[in-house]
Amino acid sequence: MSEDSSATTSFREDGTTERLTVDTINTIRTLAIDAVEKANSGHPGTPMALAPVGYTLWRDFLRIDPDVPDWPNRDRFVLSVGHASMLLYALLHLARVKEIDAHGNLTGLPAVSLDDIKQFRQLGSKTPGHPEYRMTTGVETTTGPLGQGCGNSVGMAIAERALAARFNRDGFTLFDHDVYVLCGDGDMMEGISGEAASVAAHLKLSNLCWIYDSNHISIEGSTELAFTEDVGKRFEAYGWNVLHVNDANDTHAITQVLATFRETNDRPTFIVVHSVIGWGSPRAGSAKAHGEALGADNVRATKKAYGWPEDAQFLVPDGVADAFHGVISKRGKAAREAWQREFERYRKTFPKEAAEFDLLREGKLPDGWDTDIPVFPADAKGIASRDAGGKVLNAIAPHVPMLIGGAADLAPSTKTNLTFEGAGAFEANRYDGRNMHFGVREHAMGAIANGMALSYLRSYSATFLVFADYMRAPIRLAAIMEVPVVFVFTHDSIGVGEDGPTHQPIEHLATLRAIPGLDTIRPGDANETAVAWKVALSHTHEPTALILSRQALPTIDRGKYASADGVQQGAYVLADCKGEPQLILIATGSEVSLAISAYEKLSADGIRARVVSMPSWYLFEKQDRAYRDQVLPPAVKARLAIEQAGSLGWDRYVGTDGATITMSTFGASAPLAKLQEKFGFTIDNVVKVAHQLIKAHSS
Amino acid sequence: MSEDSSATTSFREDGTTERLTVDTINTIRTLAIDAVEKANSGHPGTPMALAPVGYTLWRDFLRIDPDVPDWPNRDRFVLSVGHASMLLYALLHLARVKEIDAHGNLTGLPAVSLDDIKQFRQLGSKTPGHPEYRMTTGVETTTGPLGQGCGNSVGMAIAERALAARFNRDGFTLFDHDVYVLCGDGDMMEGISGEAASVAAHLKLSNLCWIYDSNHISIEGSTELAFTEDVGKRFEAYGWNVLHVNDANDTHAITQVLATFRETNDRPTFIVVHSVIGWGSPRAGSAKAHGEALGADNVRATKKAYGWPEDAQFLVPDGVADAFHGVISKRGKAAREAWQREFERYRKTFPKEAAEFDLLREGKLPDGWDTDIPVFPADAKGIASRDAGGKVLNAIAPHVPMLIGGAADLAPSTKTNLTFEGAGAFEANRYDGRNMHFGVREHAMGAIANGMALSYLRSYSATFLVFADYMRAPIRLAAIMEVPVVFVFTHDSIGVGEDGPTHQPIEHLATLRAIPGLDTIRPGDANETAVAWKVALSHTHEPTALILSRQALPTIDRGKYASADGVQQGAYVLADCKGEPQLILIATGSEVSLAISAYEKLSADGIRARVVSMPSWYLFEKQDRAYRDQVLPPAVKARLAIEQAGSLGWDRYVGTDGATITMSTFGASAPLAKLQEKFGFTIDNVVKVAHQLIKAHSS
Repeated sequence: MSEDSSATTSFREDGTTERLTVDTINTIRTLAIDAVEKANSGHPGTPMALAPVGYTLWRDFLRIDPDVPDWPNRDRFVLSVGHASMLLYALLHLARVKEIDAHGNLTGLPAVSLDDIKQFRQLGSKTPGHPEYRMTTGVETTTGPLGQGCGNSVGMAIAERALAARFNRDGFTLFDHDVYVLCGDGDMMEGISGEAASVAAHLKLSNLCWIYDSNHISIEGSTELAFTEDVGKRFEAYGWNVLHVNDANDTHAITQVLATFRETNDRPTFIVVHSVIGWGSPRAGSAKAHGEALGADNVRATKKAYGWPEDAQFLVPDGVADAFHGVISKRGKAAREAWQREFERYRKTFPKEAAEFDLLREGKLPDGWDTDIPVFPADAKGIASRDAGGKVLNAIAPHVPMLIGGAADLAPSTKTNLTFEGAGAFEANRYDGRNMHFGVREHAMGAIANGMALSYLRSYSATFLVFADYMRAPIRLAAIMEVPVVFVFTHDSIGVGEDGPTHQPIEHLATLRAIPGLDTIRPGDANETAVAWKVALSHTHEPTALILSRQALPTIDRGKYASADGVQQGAYVLADCKGEPQLILIATGSEVSLAISAYEKLSADGIRARVVSMPSWYLFEKQDRAYRDQVLPPAVKARLAIEQAGSLGWDRYVGTDGATITMSTFGASAPLAKLQEKFGFTIDNVVKVAHQLIKAHSS
Repeated sequence: MSEDSSATTSFREDGTTERLTVDTINTIRTLAIDAVEKANSGHPGTPMALAPVGYTLWRDFLRIDPDVPDWPNRDRFVLSVGHASMLLYALLHLARVKEIDAHGNLTGLPAVSLDDIKQFRQLGSKTPGHPEYRMTTGVETTTGPLGQGCGNSVGMAIAERALAARFNRDGFTLFDHDVYVLCGDGDMMEGISGEAASVAAHLKLSNLCWIYDSNHISIEGSTELAFTEDVGKRFEAYGWNVLHVNDANDTHAITQVLATFRETNDRPTFIVVHSVIGWGSPRAGSAKAHGEALGADNVRATKKAYGWPEDAQFLVPDGVADAFHGVISKRGKAAREAWQREFERYRKTFPKEAAEFDLLREGKLPDGWDTDIPVFPADAKGIASRDAGGKVLNAIAPHVPMLIGGAADLAPSTKTNLTFEGAGAFEANRYDGRNMHFGVREHAMGAIANGMALSYLRSYSATFLVFADYMRAPIRLAAIMEVPVVFVFTHDSIGVGEDGPTHQPIEHLATLRAIPGLDTIRPGDANETAVAWKVALSHTHEPTALILSRQALPTIDRGKYASADGVQQGAYVLADCKGEPQLILIATGSEVSLAISAYEKLSADGIRARVVSMPSWYLFEKQDRAYRDQVLPPAVKARLAIEQAGSLGWDRYVGTDGATITMSTFGASAPLAKLQEKFGFTIDNVVKVAHQLIKAHSS
């Protein structure tokens, strides 16, 4: 028995270390089995197969302090096979990780108690079906949609390298942690993991270790049905160090390959572990073991095969948790305390840097981060909001060193490159660079940006709006996790022009607005873009989709019209009439200046019109009723929304009596002016429809 | 000069075959240069680099008949690098491919005339920025979003194998065509191409050849910035035969590897061609050559380097098109005529099979295809619509042999497996199977399904609704191309239960409804599901998203309530009151029976209520105003929409005075009943909100 054990009784008589290892592994397995059985829902097979891997990794390698689970330099453990959540919950329980609240304060509770495990998959429990960040201490990222954890882990490994480059000093190694991932056949089949793996090897992230559970079983049956490639060779092609473990139950072999990982410093490590899903059960090696409770008879048979009391449920033999916790805690506490002492010395030598890191931990931005944001003078010709966005980003980024991001091989088009002195590229062995080159890999880019944000970075990504389709899942997960990633999307409408319908977003604004907790902002000119970036970086719990134009937009005269600060309320009265408006023109992005032009013409015709700029539905809905009614008075029913996108959702603001000038079809390949004419985005058409609307409401 | 040439004059004096080869290649290059220059928009660099590859492939391998461009057994050419559209337009022009209309009739025009090329990227031209299926004869699929063409090509290669398995007979080889793809670094970085490549190798699609343009340049600069893996080795790991061409200008080497492809019959072929982007221009080898016009000076310098008249524009030297067309046409016409004769003999020997293929070409279903669709008796317990869907699909599929599809490793859950005698799996060398095992590769699945549909198959795919996020791009492209793929999505709401928020779609209905031309149908019970499948397969130009439940839904008593045939109108009055309703309950899917239960309670309370089942907004919007006003009378403002999804878009139907019971947040992990209670999807809550609404409208 471990010297840390306080066990006094056990159903075992033969208390050797080997026995304890087996018992701990079987405790993990049977907790998973029992939790799934009680919930009559869940995935027992993978925890049963991977328990020895999880055990070995956590017991002998993972550097965490169960008492201080948010220690910044802890190793990260990502369960990309999120359906195997019980494996993680069992490990957190046995390691006696303590619970912390959203502010990092200990609550006095365990992260996962045995009662929590008994509440597996129940409403409000800390043990939801898939691991959820924020819900359970020790869950480093929300996983379940396959491949996402793999992508996140690359972002976490990047963050470690960036933090090390920023904060480590001679004699002070504040950051040198590793990132471990458990992934499976499903992860490996998803394209996102291939994208992320290529990035990881390119960046030589030797702090990253993926453990691939090759169990030859997927939901439809044998992987022979659909998955016969040589995954190890594929990872060699990416540039990973590929190692093999022939039997997931061989903890010695697992120890060896993990030790090899720790010694490898020129590339990421990929460990292929051959396992048997549902090991030990009558369903072992079959797809039936994957996603449903084993059933009472199988549970008994399995426990018997493990040499486990057949009728025991949620059994944690005396000594098991003591020993497991003891070893992990001894290693982790020593490391964490040493780190803490080092950080205090660091604070004395490098007070500015220490304070900077304090802010990162608190999710705050440095004082004065927004002082250099330019004010753009009125300009009829104007500039594209992507260009304005680039200028604003470059005005902010020098003040926010951990604002790091990049584009999916489109930086010259999205204008997101950081161009100031020393910004540089984030590249292999040049980890102090600020510009990520994600390659043409939108899906991985999103997941990587999420992983970076989960490790203290303020991350942003960029591509064309139409390619938001390639990265929906990570955007959604950022919203679920409430991490404030900024997703920049340029080329935001038929304004793309000649590239045609495949490159012209139509439905994408609606599809982003549909995501709960995502702030989608489509600024109308350069100054609205500046405020939009300020809002995005001020968010601490919301990701932002920043929607920018390819084409130049007039910079609105803010002396004549309202301040762009109204962006903060989501929508605001930009131009108004005297008295109650006969008509409200509502517009976003490139259509705001069109609305103003129409407004000026209508005003000249004696029409009382108002222009509402509405860059963010999300922020507008957060305002109180009084403000919303002030911007859109309920009495004014003649409302015309103008947006170069599909109409879905606009009925909320124009009502049943209003109208929209929007896109009802896909776009076309042609110069922008021709498209504006074809699809009705001209001053004349807006004025025409406005008159029709006023007439309909006055009759 | 080729014997087919009718050239009489040329700016060349040295009319050798070698000279003609070079001239043809340079014609392709300069047409691309000039078209981009005239449009001042487009991508010259890749056509310039790949002209020798396109030339060699088309001239010496591609089996097409320019006079009969829709010959069923033609080889397929997919330009996955869609931005290089001018390469394809130039090839179509020089090969003198004739234009056909949507019915396959010759129009008397060329597919792409020189004038069309001069109209590159202009409104209404046949030469849009990216190749668009339906817009230009000879364009086999719409490409541009990277990786999609690769995915489509796997579907086309699958279709060839399926058609061969179905129709070929001893002595009759109706199908033996190949599928060629030009792809680039961007395609290779995208995860979808990796997914598709794994499928292709798994299925041993030896009729598939991807030619990878390795030019070491992407938009942000050298691929060294983000893409340093060994792509060839990666494809070997998938199981492809990997060949190399060291110089894209070496037409002899290209000929050799293409000949090797033709001889390879056990796996797909991957050809790595090293090229120089913008070859011959001052911008050669630089990112600047990718996506913009070269500029007048560079154009002149480039033409000079080619030995081309510097001031000539859109020059097609005499003899070039004659010769290129001549060789292609000679080979293709002979093959096509032989095929035609063979098919006529086939028709005599196998009249049933010939008639079956005729129907496929016409996009029609066999007589009696829907005769076995079950009618489900009223049943309070009911069945899940996924189960009903499986039964209906299995009732239709025996009558529609080319209805082929499958799931992304979720068939046991989506219930889309074809289980009747002989259905079998579509596997390597068992190409008569009906069940595709796509693996956990949603993105490739969508693109493959599109490719299958482009080659006569009625394809369907299946996964959970939340994973629609992984395959947005192909769904969108199916809508743009107007191909009637059926995308089945089950587990359609918080009804998923314990798997929690990562697996519970909230925003996905809205995001699908937002796609123009996609019919999103969420049937409310088993009989609505049957009609939904009928509608989906009746579509000839619309893809369908079929949204099905995980949980059992009561089978509505159609004696008591209206017929499920109302699905065909998108929405219909399912249950009604006498006189004008005080309230309309609008529901879809699993909420329809909830609406009925509430309706019954409200009716018992003396409330005049109506229930509208609204499975398809798309179909409902196609109905005339009279029908729509009959279902949703404008005078009835008290409307309550109930849907276990986000509210976005519902304002259109409930108006500013109505209400919704919908999801405003992500879901949670818990048993369904607990979630229904938590989020208000209970009879009591519906009745409560209904009363509030009636009260508000009567006061």
